[in-house]
Amino acid sequence: MVVRVAVNGYGTIGKRVADAVAKQPDMKVVGVAKTRPSFEARVAIQRGYPLFVAAGGKVEEFGAAGLPVAGTVPEMLEVADVVVDAAPDKVGRENALLYEAAKVRAVFQGGEKADIAETSFTAGANYSAAKGKRSVRVVSCNTTGIARAVAVLDRHYGVESWDATIVRRAADPGESKKGPINGILPTFKIPSHHGPDVRTIFPHLNVQTIAVVVPTTLMHVHVNRVRLARPAQDAPELAQAFRSARRFHVFEEWEHVDGTPQVMEFARDRGAARPDMMENVLWAHGIRVDGREAHFFQAIHQESIVVPENIDAIRAMFDLAPDAEASMAITDRTLGISRS
Amino acid sequence: MVVRVAVNGYGTIGKRVADAVAKQPDMKVVGVAKTRPSFEARVAIQRGYPLFVAAGGKVEEFGAAGLPVAGTVPEMLEVADVVVDAAPDKVGRENALLYEAAKVRAVFQGGEKADIAETSFTAGANYSAAKGKRSVRVVSCNTTGIARAVAVLDRHYGVESWDATIVRRAADPGESKKGPINGILPTFKIPSHHGPDVRTIFPHLNVQTIAVVVPTTLMHVHVNRVRLARPAQDAPELAQAFRSARRFHVFEEWEHVDGTPQVMEFARDRGAARPDMMENVLWAHGIRVDGREAHFFQAIHQESIVVPENIDAIRAMFDLAPDAEASMAITDRTLGISRS
Amino acid sequence: MVVRVAVNGYGTIGKRVADAVAKQPDMKVVGVAKTRPSFEARVAIQRGYPLFVAAGGKVEEFGAAGLPVAGTVPEMLEVADVVVDAAPDKVGRENALLYEAAKVRAVFQGGEKADIAETSFTAGANYSAAKGKRSVRVVSCNTTGIARAVAVLDRHYGVESWDATIVRRAADPGESKKGPINGILPTFKIPSHHGPDVRTIFPHLNVQTIAVVVPTTLMHVHVNRVRLARPAQDAPELAQAFRSARRFHVFEEWEHVDGTPQVMEFARDRGAARPDMMENVLWAHGIRVDGREAHFFQAIHQESIVVPENIDAIRAMFDLAPDAEASMAITDRTLGISRS
Amino acid sequence: MVVRVAVNGYGTIGKRVADAVAKQPDMKVVGVAKTRPSFEARVAIQRGYPLFVAAGGKVEEFGAAGLPVAGTVPEMLEVADVVVDAAPDKVGRENALLYEAAKVRAVFQGGEKADIAETSFTAGANYSAAKGKRSVRVVSCNTTGIARAVAVLDRHYGVESWDATIVRRAADPGESKKGPINGILPTFKIPSHHGPDVRTIFPHLNVQTIAVVVPTTLMHVHVNRVRLARPAQDAPELAQAFRSARRFHVFEEWEHVDGTPQVMEFARDRGAARPDMMENVLWAHGIRVDGREAHFFQAIHQESIVVPENIDAIRAMFDLAPDAEASMAITDRTLGISRS
Repeated sequence: MVVRVAVNGYGTIGKRVADAVAKQPDMKVVGVAKTRPSFEARVAIQRGYPLFVAAGGKVEEFGAAGLPVAGTVPEMLEVADVVVDAAPDKVGRENALLYEAAKVRAVFQGGEKADIAETSFTAGANYSAAKGKRSVRVVSCNTTGIARAVAVLDRHYGVESWDATIVRRAADPGESKKGPINGILPTFKIPSHHGPDVRTIFPHLNVQTIAVVVPTTLMHVHVNRVRLARPAQDAPELAQAFRSARRFHVFEEWEHVDGTPQVMEFARDRGAARPDMMENVLWAHGIRVDGREAHFFQAIHQESIVVPENIDAIRAMFDLAPDAEASMAITDRTLGISRS
Repeated sequence: MVVRVAVNGYGTIGKRVADAVAKQPDMKVVGVAKTRPSFEARVAIQRGYPLFVAAGGKVEEFGAAGLPVAGTVPEMLEVADVVVDAAPDKVGRENALLYEAAKVRAVFQGGEKADIAETSFTAGANYSAAKGKRSVRVVSCNTTGIARAVAVLDRHYGVESWDATIVRRAADPGESKKGPINGILPTFKIPSHHGPDVRTIFPHLNVQTIAVVVPTTLMHVHVNRVRLARPAQDAPELAQAFRSARRFHVFEEWEHVDGTPQVMEFARDRGAARPDMMENVLWAHGIRVDGREAHFFQAIHQESIVVPENIDAIRAMFDLAPDAEASMAITDRTLGISRS
Repeated sequence: MVVRVAVNGYGTIGKRVADAVAKQPDMKVVGVAKTRPSFEARVAIQRGYPLFVAAGGKVEEFGAAGLPVAGTVPEMLEVADVVVDAAPDKVGRENALLYEAAKVRAVFQGGEKADIAETSFTAGANYSAAKGKRSVRVVSCNTTGIARAVAVLDRHYGVESWDATIVRRAADPGESKKGPINGILPTFKIPSHHGPDVRTIFPHLNVQTIAVVVPTTLMHVHVNRVRLARPAQDAPELAQAFRSARRFHVFEEWEHVDGTPQVMEFARDRGAARPDMMENVLWAHGIRVDGREAHFFQAIHQESIVVPENIDAIRAMFDLAPDAEASMAITDRTLGISRS
Repeated sequence: MVVRVAVNGYGTIGKRVADAVAKQPDMKVVGVAKTRPSFEARVAIQRGYPLFVAAGGKVEEFGAAGLPVAGTVPEMLEVADVVVDAAPDKVGRENALLYEAAKVRAVFQGGEKADIAETSFTAGANYSAAKGKRSVRVVSCNTTGIARAVAVLDRHYGVESWDATIVRRAADPGESKKGPINGILPTFKIPSHHGPDVRTIFPHLNVQTIAVVVPTTLMHVHVNRVRLARPAQDAPELAQAFRSARRFHVFEEWEHVDGTPQVMEFARDRGAARPDMMENVLWAHGIRVDGREAHFFQAIHQESIVVPENIDAIRAMFDLAPDAEASMAITDRTLGISRS
C-alpha cells in the first residue's frame, strides 16, 4: 500500500514534510497547499508537487505569477488518505472540521492543543499509541527534543525529575520581520508550556521547563538538569546511551563545535538535501554526571526535528510497519539520519 | 577623612567606578590610568580626572593626540590611599605586586582569582568581611547578582539549594570585535565557574550554575530555581522581599517590560548620568512560588552592577561607615539607586 | 513669554522632546499624552509632567496601575499654545483636525507627509521658513541628517549633486518585536523616499538616496557621494567645515571609534541626561576629497537627532528668537550639544 | 585528461572547491589539507578525500581523533597537477614558494595580492587571460560579484562609471568569534580595496567602492549606481540582460524575497548539495533605469560565489575547454547553477 499524503501549509515544516514523504517507499505526495505565490511555491512546482490553493488564498494570484494550480484544499483532500496539517498555529483547529468532513485522516503539529487529536506523538517514546488512529498530533520541536531524551534516559536509568531551561531562537532563518535584534526576553509564565506538553507523551513525568527567547535563528538550546532513578557511571556512559539511540548526534570535543553556528555548519557540510539536523544534538564534553544527577546541553533544530516524527506518525496510523524500530529504521535511512 | 582613590584601567568598569567615586562625600579620584588615547581618555580629561599612562602605554601617543598626561601608574600610586584595579582579567595578578610595593591598598575585580585578595566581597552579603582589609576582591557581575539574591532569600526563608542557568550576553555594547552574531554557545564546563565563585561569599551554599552565551550586548539573564528552607507564601511575597532590599528593581506586568531591551530603555529614561542598572532586575510576573520552591528570572547589567560594590568595599576597608546599611545608604543615594 | 507645549505621543521622540522642552527658558511642558500605562508613563509622572490619556487609551488602565491622569488629549490642548505631535506615523493626519479645532499650533514629525503642515523644517537649513507658522513639520531623522550636511557643504562649496546610501537600523534599542535578526533587507523602491523628502527643504537639490535595512538598533549610517560646485582642498578642510557648524561631531582616528557601537558608548560616557547623539557624526579619517568630489560617512542617531529641531521649530513659530543662530545657540546650550 | 587537483586549506572556500572539483568530469580531488582535526575533517574523510596535514598542523592530533592522515602538504603536491590554495588570507604568499618548488600549478584566492599570480580571473569577464597560465588568482567574492555584473552591462550598453556601496556581512554563518553583534562599522578607507581590485579584471573601468560592515552572516549586499555608455530602455530590459547571462539569479516581486534571509531560504529549498547561491542575486523590482543611469541591488553569497570561478580557472589553465562559455556550461551544469 502506498499512502497518499497531502500537506496543508507549505512553510518551514510543511515543505520539509513533503520532501520527506516523497522519499518514503510506502507514501507519496498528492498535493501541497499554499495561500499565496512565493519562491517556495515555485520550488514546489519544480519538485512536481501538485499545488493547491489554501483557504484564504486567491487562484488568480498564482495565475498572475505563472504558477499552475491543481485546485483548492477540498479538492486536494479528495485524493488523499491523510493530510499533514502544517498551517500556522491554531489554524489547525478550523481545518480539523474540514478533514473530518472529507473523511481524511490527519496529522497535526505541536502548535495545536493536545485535544485536537486522539493522541500526541513522538516516535521513540509512544509509537504504538498512534497505531490505527485517525488523528495524531506530533508534539512541537522543543517537546519532541525533550521527549526523545527522556525516552533514552528512562530506558537506561529511569527518570525521577527533569528540569530544563529552554533558550529559544527568536525566529527562523528565512523570517525577517520578527525580533528581538538585541536583547533577551524571558517567557514570564513559569513553568513554560513545554513541561505540560511533554506530559502528553509521558503523563507521569516530573518535568519543569522555563524559557527565554534570544536573538538567533539557528537552533534552540536546552540546559537540562535530570535526576535519574538509578545512578549513571559517568559522562561517557551517558554519551554512549544517547549515541546508541536513534536520532541523536553527539559531538566530540576535538570536533571544535563551539555552539549552534558550527552544528548548522556541519549540517550544511554533510550534504543532505537540506542542511537540517533532525537529530537531538549533544556534546560529549557538555555532559556532567554525578551519581543520579545528570546535567547536559542539547541543541534542537526547530525547523526539522519533527519531520521524521511526522513520517512515523503516518506509518503508525496506517500500520505500515510492525513497530517503532521498524518504522524509524526506514525513515532514518531514507532521510539520511545516521547514528553518530 | 577623604580617601584618595586611583583607578587603574579605564574601561567599562573603571570609568564607572571613577564616576561613582567622584560622587562620594568621603572619597576623591586622584587619577585614572589608560594604555592608549581614545574617546574615553578624552572624556576622562574633560571630567577633570588626572590621566596616567598604564603599563604598556606610550606617553608620546597621548601627546600626539593632545591629551595631557599626569604621569605613569607608579606615580599615580604615590598619591593614592587605595587603587581600584579594573585592568583586563588576569592582569590584576601582576599589578598586585606593584600595589604592594607602593604600600597602597587595592580593590580587585571578579576577573581575578579569589586568592588575589584577603576576601571576596558583596556589600549586601558580607560587608564586614572587608573591614580594615588591605585587599578586597569584588566578585564578578553574575556572581554579585547571585550573591545579592541569595542574601535576600536567605534572610527571609533560608536557602537550601540554588540552581541557576546563566544566559550570558556575548559582548558589551561598546565592543565591536566579539561574536557570535547568530548562534548560541554553551559553556561546556558544567558547572560553570559562577557557582564556586558564589561560595567565596557563601561558603556553605549548595549552588550550581550552568551557562550559555547568546548574541546580545545588553544584560545577562538568570533563570533561577531555588529551594528554600522555609516555605514562601506566594510570588507577591517574594517580590516584596526583593523590593524591600537594597539594589533590587522589580517591574510590574503593566509596565510592559518584555525583556532586557525595555530594562535598558528604562535605564535611559530615568535620567541617571549613565543609563545603567546597578540593581538586580526582577519581574513580579516572572516569579513562581510553590511552597519551598521558588523560580524566578533576574537580569544583570554586566557593565554596572559591581560599581556600588566597589564603593562599599573601599568604605569597609577604611572603616568609613559603621556597617553595611550605613555605607550602602550613602552609595545608593549618591548614585541614584532608589528602591523600586 | 513662556510657550506652553503639549506632547501628544510619548514614545522614542515624544519623551525626548518633552525633556528638551523642560530645559528651555522660554517653554514649558503642560502635558504629555500616552495610550497605555508603562514604565515610560511612570517615569513621566516622576518627572512631573501632567499625564493625559491619548486617543484609544483607557483611563481605568492608568488607574489600575496607580498612575494619576490629568485628563484626555482635548483637555491637554486647552492649556497648550502648541502641541508636538509624536504619535505613530500617519496618525498625525487625524490628530491635525483635533489641533485645528482646538486652535492650537502644531509641530509634526517626518513620518507624516509634507502637506500636513505649512512648511517642512530643519533649523540649520530653513529656520526662517517656520517663522510665525501655525503648523510645521520637522523632517525625519535621515532627512534631517542629510539636510544639515547639505546646508554646510552648500554654504562652503555649493552642492551640485548628492548621492546617499542609507544603511538603516532595523529597530530602536527598546523595541523587541521587530527584525530581522540576521539578514539585509533592500528597500526596493529606488530612489528611497528620503531624497524627495530632502527636497521639501532644498527644493532644487539634485539628491538621490537608496536604502537597505540591517539588523542593528543603534544608529543609521549614510555613505555619501557628493559633487561640489567648487573644489574642496582636502579632507581636513571638509572636516573643519563640519566641525565649525552646529550639530556636528567629528571623531579623530586616534579616538578609536570603529563604528556606531563606540559612538553610542561615547554618548553614554559624556554624561548627558540621555545617552543621545543629537549631532550628525562624522569621522575625520572617513572623508575623502578629490577636487569637487567628496565622499564621507555619517552616522545618524534615529532616536534623538530631530529633538533640537523640534525645539527650534517652536521657537521659530512663536518668534522667540531673532534668527536660526540665536535659537540654535539656546537649544544647543540647554541640551548639552557642544561643537567637537 | 583528468587534472589532479589538491586543495590546500579546507575551510569555507576550500571545502566547497573540493566538492565542486569532485563533480567535474575532467578533474579529480587527490587531497585536501587541514591544520587540525574538526568536524569538517571528519566529513572530508567520509567523502573519501585523502586528508593531508597542512603546515602548522600535528599528525598526532589527527591520530588521537581517529582520523587517518595521508601525509603532509609536500606529499600532497607530489600527486597533484594543480593546487587550489584556500589558506587564510596572506598565507598563500608563503605557500606559493612551496608550489613553485614542487612544480605544481596554483590557483590563489582574492585574499592574496594580485601579483601573487600571472593573472587575476573571473570566468565571465576574462577567461582567456588564464589560458595556459601556471598561476591564477580568482578575485574575492565582492570583486567577483562586481566583475560579473560589469561584464554583462558592458556587453549590452557599455559602462562609463560604476559606484558601489558594499554592505558587508561581518562573519560567516559557521563562525562564532567575530562581531559586531549590534552596530555598523564603516570601512574608513575610501575607496575600499574592492574598486582597485575590480581593475585587475577591467583595467580601464571607472569604478569606486565604499564599504560598511553590518552584523549579519548570510550575504553581502551591493547598492550599485552605474552610468552606462548607451541608454537602457527600462528596468525589465536590464533584468533580462542579467537573466540571460550565466550565474545570475533574478527574483520577481511576487516571490516575496524581502532580503538575504529569503535568498538563503531559497538556496536551502532548491535542494542543492549545499545551500549555496553561486549566482549574483538581483531583484527585478530592485532595479531602476533612467536613460544611461542604472541603479540596482545585488546580493553576493560570500561563501560560494567564487567556487565556479575556481573550477573555470583550472579548466582555462589546462586548456580543457575551447572558451569561457564551454567551460562555464560544464561547471554550471555539474554544480546545479541554472539560469533563472
